[in-house]
Amino acid sequence: MSRWEPDARGRLQQAAIELYTERGFEQTTVAEIAERAGLTERTFFRHFADKREVLFDRSNALLELFVESTANAPADASPIEAVTAALLSAADMFESRRPWSTERQKVIVANPSLQERELIKMAGLGIAVAATLRSRGVAEPHASLAAEAGIAVFRVTFERWVADDNILPFAEIVTDSMAALKVVVVDAAATTRQNA
Amino acid sequence: MSRWEPDARGRLQQAAIELYTERGFEQTTVAEIAERAGLTERTFFRHFADKREVLFDRSNALLELFVESTANAPADASPIEAVTAALLSAADMFESRRPWSTERQKVIVANPSLQERELIKMAGLGIAVAATLRSRGVAEPHASLAAEAGIAVFRVTFERWVADDNILPFAEIVTDSMAALKVVVVDAAATTRQNA
Repeated sequence: MSRWEPDARGRLQQAAIELYTERGFEQTTVAEIAERAGLTERTFFRHFADKREVLFDRSNALLELFVESTANAPADASPIEAVTAALLSAADMFESRRPWSTERQKVIVANPSLQERELIKMAGLGIAVAATLRSRGVAEPHASLAAEAGIAVFRVTFERWVADDNILPFAEIVTDSMAALKVVVVDAAATTRQNA
Repeated sequence: MSRWEPDARGRLQQAAIELYTERGFEQTTVAEIAERAGLTERTFFRHFADKREVLFDRSNALLELFVESTANAPADASPIEAVTAALLSAADMFESRRPWSTERQKVIVANPSLQERELIKMAGLGIAVAATLRSRGVAEPHASLAAEAGIAVFRVTFERWVADDNILPFAEIVTDSMAALKVVVVDAAATTRQNA
């Protein structure tokens, strides 16, 4: 009974995000997702552990990408340069599915338990990047501070990128947000003037 | 039956942290905590919603302190200066109970569900400080970046402060960690050299 379903995974994700948006995450069942996708519950569970994991299926891929890009940054790259390279390396992954990311963000913002899951994912990214920086020879607290500052830039970038009125590409917002971080952390007077 | 118990709250917290350290958080019951403190379960539940909240009873106080100190920083303080003032304002609260903080940290590190609760607390601090910066006239993304960088410094500071071999006061580690953040974010070459 495990006949091949063309792009079952993608159809299930599309059906799920539609239903989460229409009815809310809590109110949607796996049976409804499968029905909307024209598939069985059994097929759903071959692809996803539960309805929450539909929204977090790329978490591991993102973590691996961040770790790999941080590790493979040029040997003379500073910690924050390595972290910036990691954020930029995720641009293609995000750009290829902007509508999905935008809808996903709205579902998550509307649901505290999903927000918690997202926080845990972000913390995991920071921990993994810090460990990778240490393996590049960066000492503490510099490794953790560079990693966590990078994740702060990633979060801010992501929120700016999925905003309804945004027209900028992900990579450009990474660069702009990293520049804003430098202004905030160092050129204090400039920030104050800018916002006066 | 609600007779006054001298420092019931403190005795319950002390009993709880002892038991969490000896047996593990999951293996400890409210009945055992009350018994160790020489009090009743009923008294426990007058002070704490559940055994987890014993470890998070100062979360709201810390959030209020951060928000108040950020709001009350001098009008000409930059965002990161206001956030630094907020972190320093918490020094007395922490120093007054360093043994508690140290034991609490070990219990939390040993338990994933407590780590998640701690992450959510930290995220809440960042969100509240960012909102306070916006009310000071700081625009986005600067407000969120200053707040999240500040919380990253707070986390790093806290971990350094509770480390077994630490002899430095909390306030000094805040200042040192904030300086390390500036090195990491801006003086990239210096960080690389330092760790070469």
